[in-house]
Amino acid sequence: MKLDELDTPAALVDVTRMNRNIARMQSRMNALGVRFRPHVKTTKCLEVVRAQLAAGADGITVSTLKEAEAFFAAGVTDILYAVSIVRSKLPRAMALRQQGCDLKLVVDNALAAAEVAKFCAAQRETFEVWIEVDTDGHRSGISPEQDGLLEVGRILHEGGIKLGGVMTHAGSSYDLHTPDALSALAERERSGCVRAAQRLRDAGLPCDAVSIGSTPTALAAGKLDGVSEVRAGVYVFFDLVMHNIGICSTDDIALSVLATVIGHQPEKDWVILDAGWMAMSRDRGTSKQTRDFGYGLPCTLDGTPLSDWILSSANQEHGILSPVHGTRGKSLASRFPIGTKLRILPNHACATGAQFPEYHALSADGETTVWSRFHGW
Amino acid sequence: MKLDELDTPAALVDVTRMNRNIARMQSRMNALGVRFRPHVKTTKCLEVVRAQLAAGADGITVSTLKEAEAFFAAGVTDILYAVSIVRSKLPRAMALRQQGCDLKLVVDNALAAAEVAKFCAAQRETFEVWIEVDTDGHRSGISPEQDGLLEVGRILHEGGIKLGGVMTHAGSSYDLHTPDALSALAERERSGCVRAAQRLRDAGLPCDAVSIGSTPTALAAGKLDGVSEVRAGVYVFFDLVMHNIGICSTDDIALSVLATVIGHQPEKDWVILDAGWMAMSRDRGTSKQTRDFGYGLPCTLDGTPLSDWILSSANQEHGILSPVHGTRGKSLASRFPIGTKLRILPNHACATGAQFPEYHALSADGETTVWSRFHGW
Repeated sequence: MKLDELDTPAALVDVTRMNRNIARMQSRMNALGVRFRPHVKTTKCLEVVRAQLAAGADGITVSTLKEAEAFFAAGVTDILYAVSIVRSKLPRAMALRQQGCDLKLVVDNALAAAEVAKFCAAQRETFEVWIEVDTDGHRSGISPEQDGLLEVGRILHEGGIKLGGVMTHAGSSYDLHTPDALSALAERERSGCVRAAQRLRDAGLPCDAVSIGSTPTALAAGKLDGVSEVRAGVYVFFDLVMHNIGICSTDDIALSVLATVIGHQPEKDWVILDAGWMAMSRDRGTSKQTRDFGYGLPCTLDGTPLSDWILSSANQEHGILSPVHGTRGKSLASRFPIGTKLRILPNHACATGAQFPEYHALSADGETTVWSRFHGW
Repeated sequence: MKLDELDTPAALVDVTRMNRNIARMQSRMNALGVRFRPHVKTTKCLEVVRAQLAAGADGITVSTLKEAEAFFAAGVTDILYAVSIVRSKLPRAMALRQQGCDLKLVVDNALAAAEVAKFCAAQRETFEVWIEVDTDGHRSGISPEQDGLLEVGRILHEGGIKLGGVMTHAGSSYDLHTPDALSALAERERSGCVRAAQRLRDAGLPCDAVSIGSTPTALAAGKLDGVSEVRAGVYVFFDLVMHNIGICSTDDIALSVLATVIGHQPEKDWVILDAGWMAMSRDRGTSKQTRDFGYGLPCTLDGTPLSDWILSSANQEHGILSPVHGTRGKSLASRFPIGTKLRILPNHACATGAQFPEYHALSADGETTVWSRFHGW
């Protein structure tokens, strides 16, 4: 189908842009001499992941066991489940392992490590486990210098678990917007994770993998000495948050929401669209950045940004487009007649994509193909 | 399955609370002498809608054609599609109509009205169409006193369309939090919609239905003279936004997200859960209300609120629980050991439910049943 034949709202993937984003990240990782393990939580879509693997990615990162199950069923075996495991999730993880999935788990505390070891002993099986390291204080993980790091390492190793490595995610990179700050955080992420690996090795513990990454730090890193692999997710589509961080232009953003004008309120300078928060998601990630795009930046059907307009407000199935400066009054309806189709660039591609059961992949020839995606856990 | 056997995160529906909420709204509408047409966009779940119809609801309201198709396939015929129609959506709507669905469309502008009439003439079929009225300036609709109201009515009526009525939604009720303000808005919603109907009738146009509603105004209305039916959606589950508006207690909130403690950061007073924004949604509807619950209010497994704690921050699959006042330090891990399960009350039930492919319906006996829900358009 052509773009103007699609029902709206619809999630569009510009395949040309996506492939360019994939090539950019992969060539950067190749130049830095590290493996690249894309985080598939952004898309949960087999066609996208196949394109990432075809470009040179080594294995994938997942945020849920459902992702691990879906991509293993599709033939991907090297999978890092990058959320700290708990006892109740071990049987489901073990089922994957027993089917031949090279599933790697993550822990950041002694209790979880002991439970993995105890579970494996009872099952007469083992897991490969990586330790999560906290390099920027934004979420989970053990700081590189904490005693707990070696304690967790020993519990795993002495409990018969394969201690496969360390991993960290400098998610605070989303709060930055200058090249210098991003480079500094990238170096902090690298050096912290390498230091954690060194401490484990110095204590006689194995630690092959040193895995780091977030999209902004991956693109800001100048050298990656001691790092074995990098992970990143949102780079594949980019979004307005990434634009504000300064690592992509609006022309790189591969995901947009196709919407139709369904009404006007000329006294308020409002154009009403059929893309509300159910389509865009409630993510307001640009609200604290240097430029607030509301719920999204509208573009014409051919992808040209209408930089004087934003999706300023959203109800469940209604989006309100309004001018950033000044008023348009009665000219609204002639500028955006009822039935006009627009493409809205999202704040956060991971959140917007999750609102849709499928993407419509738009090729350079203007044809679209359905790429299904899944949700849930 | 029992609650503690469910994989997390999971969307739980407390069936006892849900049935109480349904009975409360229906008995109120019965007492006010109006029909009740629940908005199914909140749940998109057949079991919930069956309970609403069994309690006395007359027909349903939908926000997407997919909802109309799904509930018509399940036997519901009286359906109001409450988003202004555009030309591109008419064939799909007509397909429902031709299968016997009593689908009512909505318009709020002359162009859409003319296009419906033109489409119907070409198809030698008709639609029932209602005119959307704007009674509080928060979104779409024609103001009761505007000339456009009669113009749209005439285009429909003279174009061979069945002009079935008027409808309005006082969505600005979500910004209020006092009984007086809610009562005043409920009366404004009622009187504005009744006035629009009267103007149409005075002009010789038919206007049987006078349909109003939002959950807060429906529960605040003291009389509904001239109104034929009320619509409301979120009342079936309620949520923290509705709690802050003052129309329910936390004990009425029927939807929660079951989550597991997966880590701690004692220096920061953080308990890490496996329910992030992918589970809770990005809805921060309480952020501008009198009490900000972050991403949600935690409760114990039996549903008792832990009022000193909120889900203060969320990443995609990580939620951060932290104390509202003071610090807990090392006692965090003994208060919330790894593996502890909690139930998180959401800001906005419509947004949180949409993150899940299914609800787990929790009966009074502690057993859970899967109720599937759909998403997409």
